[in-house]
Amino acid sequence: MDDYERPLFFHLMKYAAEADRDVVDMVSGNPDWEPPEALRTGLKTYADGTPDEFQYPPSDGLVELRAEIAQRHDVDVERVVVTNGAGEANYLAMATALEAFGGDKIAMATPVYPYYHKRTEMLDATATFVPSEPDGTLDSDAVREVVSEDTAAIVINSPNNPTGGVYGRETKRDLVAIAEECDALLVSDEVYDRFVYDEEAFETALGFDSANVAVTNAFSKSMAITGFRVGYGIYPDHLTDAIRTRHMLVNVAGSRPAQRAVLDALRETPESYYERNRQLLDERIEAFCAALDRAGAEYARPRGGFYVMARFDGHPGTLDNTERLIDEAGVAGMPGDAFGDSHAEWFRFAVVTPRAEEAAERLAAHFGR
Amino acid sequence: MDDYERPLFFHLMKYAAEADRDVVDMVSGNPDWEPPEALRTGLKTYADGTPDEFQYPPSDGLVELRAEIAQRHDVDVERVVVTNGAGEANYLAMATALEAFGGDKIAMATPVYPYYHKRTEMLDATATFVPSEPDGTLDSDAVREVVSEDTAAIVINSPNNPTGGVYGRETKRDLVAIAEECDALLVSDEVYDRFVYDEEAFETALGFDSANVAVTNAFSKSMAITGFRVGYGIYPDHLTDAIRTRHMLVNVAGSRPAQRAVLDALRETPESYYERNRQLLDERIEAFCAALDRAGAEYARPRGGFYVMARFDGHPGTLDNTERLIDEAGVAGMPGDAFGDSHAEWFRFAVVTPRAEEAAERLAAHFGR
Repeated sequence: MDDYERPLFFHLMKYAAEADRDVVDMVSGNPDWEPPEALRTGLKTYADGTPDEFQYPPSDGLVELRAEIAQRHDVDVERVVVTNGAGEANYLAMATALEAFGGDKIAMATPVYPYYHKRTEMLDATATFVPSEPDGTLDSDAVREVVSEDTAAIVINSPNNPTGGVYGRETKRDLVAIAEECDALLVSDEVYDRFVYDEEAFETALGFDSANVAVTNAFSKSMAITGFRVGYGIYPDHLTDAIRTRHMLVNVAGSRPAQRAVLDALRETPESYYERNRQLLDERIEAFCAALDRAGAEYARPRGGFYVMARFDGHPGTLDNTERLIDEAGVAGMPGDAFGDSHAEWFRFAVVTPRAEEAAERLAAHFGR
Repeated sequence: MDDYERPLFFHLMKYAAEADRDVVDMVSGNPDWEPPEALRTGLKTYADGTPDEFQYPPSDGLVELRAEIAQRHDVDVERVVVTNGAGEANYLAMATALEAFGGDKIAMATPVYPYYHKRTEMLDATATFVPSEPDGTLDSDAVREVVSEDTAAIVINSPNNPTGGVYGRETKRDLVAIAEECDALLVSDEVYDRFVYDEEAFETALGFDSANVAVTNAFSKSMAITGFRVGYGIYPDHLTDAIRTRHMLVNVAGSRPAQRAVLDALRETPESYYERNRQLLDERIEAFCAALDRAGAEYARPRGGFYVMARFDGHPGTLDNTERLIDEAGVAGMPGDAFGDSHAEWFRFAVVTPRAEEAAERLAAHFGR
């Protein structure tokens, strides 16, 4: 679940629970599969440790965990700060960008992951919005139109929540150049990087050597542990002191049992674990989209992530219509206007349920012509 | 360990490790005793849970954990927000006070726990300092002298780090009144409340019904788990929405395995566990202070907490003299100027080591006349 949507989420869950029929939950974005076995074992091993292992980890994360992360991304370990999930990693990047770069504006794509613009408001900055392309990607010319010397950061998310769009090499290269031109920090949230269904499509922003790039990530989705809160940022050298200080003054340190379990899981989990879950999501999306075709829906097949956005003729994605879909089709989605005005006519469906195909059939039967 | 002192801490640890002799570490403030057995068990039980138990807890903490906390403090559960340690609980209180109350100043006692004034700087506010009394308590008239309508918060810590002072009922009552008079938030950090050696001395700020009082706490010290990062704030009703929003936008949620283990430990740990550790510290402090007498040191016997501050004639608490004490006496303390200028001549010794008495004998032998 996207926690920031919790009031809406709770409302919809309650509504679905009280409905006179069986309802498939496609609202929450929580992984529904098993975490790595080594994660469970790691937590148990940790639980038997000596008292000193229960005390503060280093503020920027367990040394071995930072080393594993640095090695996997081929970056200097000094750039790696372990955070309380990708959420904190993004917060640190955005707050520090506003101080280190000139400007009080933060650019982001619409439809927008609500945390990005709400966090911008909290930081007393102004969000500027770039409309995504119909396939969920970003046109760099459109980005150029909204940035200026007042822009302190450009926050992107690829694979994207909610669109499923994936930004390719060219887009990333352009975005890095734009960040450099307007003296801003490109904050590239890559938390869904293990869920790309078109290998050609994805490019990490770390591939570009730039003092204007920060990459954020977490183990929340890849290891199906959104509740552990282990994420990280890979920040440019000139920001790491300020990032570490802010992290320390806000959180002191992250939670050590979670970090230790993730470390064990990172070392011992075979690639096949990630590949199996990626395939599972890919198959669900395939089935879901086939049914959307039969339902006559408009949608862009996601090239990454957990979500499918769809629009049905004459049935825009309002809260009322979300409730009607629960009552009449037995499928609970998220109204599109939770992600800003641009996609107010759409619904977001999370495919992190074993009943995704069943839900799709229901939609096809309900809307099918 | 106080993580914000980490560079100094590392320097002193390295220096002690490289010394030509055995050195007792009284620098770090990490509990050295066993965590509750139910905490270890709770973590193992959690590790065997279903995938959904590995997903986001509620942003403000597990419902059952908040209920246990509310019940123990006899407050409305809606006032309780579970945080990433007392550090985040204090951060949330201070940041929100600056927005909700007028003013850009935050008052605090000296010697000062470094996080308080560094966090104030990060929040673009100004710290104003009230000198503590020789016994580590606070004179409310002295507080009145430094506060004004520009004061947004008054941050106190009782039992106190580093002085060991404990503020009694009268002081707390006065501080609540002062906060109300100058329209500020009294942030009462009570993280050492399980370590009071003079029962009459301590009074929780929750005893006063006021819209100007926030109490912060954590399980870090009481359960010997500084690395778990489970703390909480009990905030006044009119601030809880703003606090929850900030917590969500910074951290999304806390770490669930740690919260779950603490919940089990909270439910199942007998009072004797806390009492045993309190007595252990009390005995160490007794022995340490007796040796300080023989060493001819000036000190105030702590009435709470983990620390003893002491001053030795002709040997002020500079970094140089801290190193000399390591070399010549085999005892590593913390230089007093880490806590501001007021106690630059003093040392802080943490009694969270089984070798506290041994260290005291060394100091007595070294300084004794």
